[in-house]
Amino acid sequence: MTRVIPAIPAIRAAIDAHRQKSAVIGLVPTMGALHAGHGRLIEEARAACDLLVVSIFVNPIQFDRPDDYERYPRPIESDVAFCEARGVDFVFAPAASEMYPSPPLTYVEVTRVSEHLCGAFRPGHFRGVATVVLKLFAIVQPDRAYFGAKDAQQLAVIRRMVRDLNLPVTITEVATVREPDGLALSSRNEHLNAAERRVAPILFQALQAAARRINDGIACADKVRAEALAVLASRPEARVEYLEIVDAEEMQPVSRIAAPVRVAGAIWLGNTRLIDNVLCVPAACSESGRHESQP
Amino acid sequence: MTRVIPAIPAIRAAIDAHRQKSAVIGLVPTMGALHAGHGRLIEEARAACDLLVVSIFVNPIQFDRPDDYERYPRPIESDVAFCEARGVDFVFAPAASEMYPSPPLTYVEVTRVSEHLCGAFRPGHFRGVATVVLKLFAIVQPDRAYFGAKDAQQLAVIRRMVRDLNLPVTITEVATVREPDGLALSSRNEHLNAAERRVAPILFQALQAAARRINDGIACADKVRAEALAVLASRPEARVEYLEIVDAEEMQPVSRIAAPVRVAGAIWLGNTRLIDNVLCVPAACSESGRHESQP
Repeated sequence: MTRVIPAIPAIRAAIDAHRQKSAVIGLVPTMGALHAGHGRLIEEARAACDLLVVSIFVNPIQFDRPDDYERYPRPIESDVAFCEARGVDFVFAPAASEMYPSPPLTYVEVTRVSEHLCGAFRPGHFRGVATVVLKLFAIVQPDRAYFGAKDAQQLAVIRRMVRDLNLPVTITEVATVREPDGLALSSRNEHLNAAERRVAPILFQALQAAARRINDGIACADKVRAEALAVLASRPEARVEYLEIVDAEEMQPVSRIAAPVRVAGAIWLGNTRLIDNVLCVPAACSESGRHESQP
Repeated sequence: MTRVIPAIPAIRAAIDAHRQKSAVIGLVPTMGALHAGHGRLIEEARAACDLLVVSIFVNPIQFDRPDDYERYPRPIESDVAFCEARGVDFVFAPAASEMYPSPPLTYVEVTRVSEHLCGAFRPGHFRGVATVVLKLFAIVQPDRAYFGAKDAQQLAVIRRMVRDLNLPVTITEVATVREPDGLALSSRNEHLNAAERRVAPILFQALQAAARRINDGIACADKVRAEALAVLASRPEARVEYLEIVDAEEMQPVSRIAAPVRVAGAIWLGNTRLIDNVLCVPAACSESGRHESQP
């Protein structure tokens, strides 16, 4: 039986009643509108943790556009049923006024990692993400927390925050779940109309084209990037926000692909913004074992 | 018997061995060069906590001047003896490379509260303080942490950080300890030469003059401030960095004194910077009970 708890003192008390030296507490932070991508996060967490908390909170301070915040879907009843069906113990679903009872003055900034990709186009976004995730960690005090690979830069920001601030939590990356045509699952997909939906898989197709060129041994990032952009150009309805090849740790654009990289892109279809990415380990790199020497 | 522990995994393991539901874990964060002011922090913490950790770490990222960082005193052996004499359980004394194994990219910023007073003259100082205190909280996971009233803006920054980020720690303010002539104890006092030392109490005298005028019922901050500055002007060797009257929560300068305020000042004597402050509750305010309605 899943318990839905909106208040911070109540979720703390509920978790503390189960907190023991041996119990593993897991947290899956979400903004709700749960889909099979979240489902995979929850299933991985459920298998590894004794007590599982899913947070559902549409975090105002990470939205750079008010209309995106307003129209973000909030189907709380079906979300709770979704959690119930997957054996979640507690759904922490606070109101904005519970999380921000007064205008927040404190922010967590992860510089450098949040500089490019989405960070360059969504001012304040990763500051808002890092801040709310730290708050959720402080409230739930999980041993493990689970984040999706689709939001690769978010994952890199959180990992770096945890490392730099010595937070006592293990971060687990969970693979992206895709529609049969390759489109990465996202709560924002439901904003797409039928025509936009048909075009949407072009983003993953472009990323796959890049991944193939990297696997072919092409090390010049500009060349790989140009081929991916050519794929996107085949569907002019898809307006490209960015398509970049970055190192897998600090999300800095690379010119030569000699270590694991993320090929990451963002496109607009009408009023809807979609992101996706693939991790590529160049053959030369995996042969030399170079990425294994990274911290 | 006090144990000195320099490594993060070791201090975590040592504390976890004592962590139980009922045990209260206390932290006194210091930069060492311990004096009777720290002594009072430690004694208050010792009385209230089951397990007491004192951290000694001269935090490089909170220094705005390299020379100040370099010449900051580091008498680790006498500091450990000081802790031993007061029943401290663990001294956590990490090297800079233990706390910052790679250049930190993550920072905690408490805006507004860190804007004036020392924050206006020491760029990055409170960002460095908030960041290292959050790291220490994440490493030690204390139930209670103790900070001195002499660093009033630091205390306000930490309190606000704890509130905004929902950190599960209770912050206790401990009164400033003074020399018989009123000079607030500070690790930097030992940099004063004999002539500077004789002048040093002028700062507290100026703050007391301001406090008397506020107690007399003067509500005009400019008028109170002018009188305190006149006291400081009597000793031209003391170069005034700032002398401000701010609200006690967010450290914003006030024009009318109608709620509790801090009168805070910073002066330079030679190459040494001294700070001090007094809390003043105007009679009209305490009669109306106004400050009790603050959060």
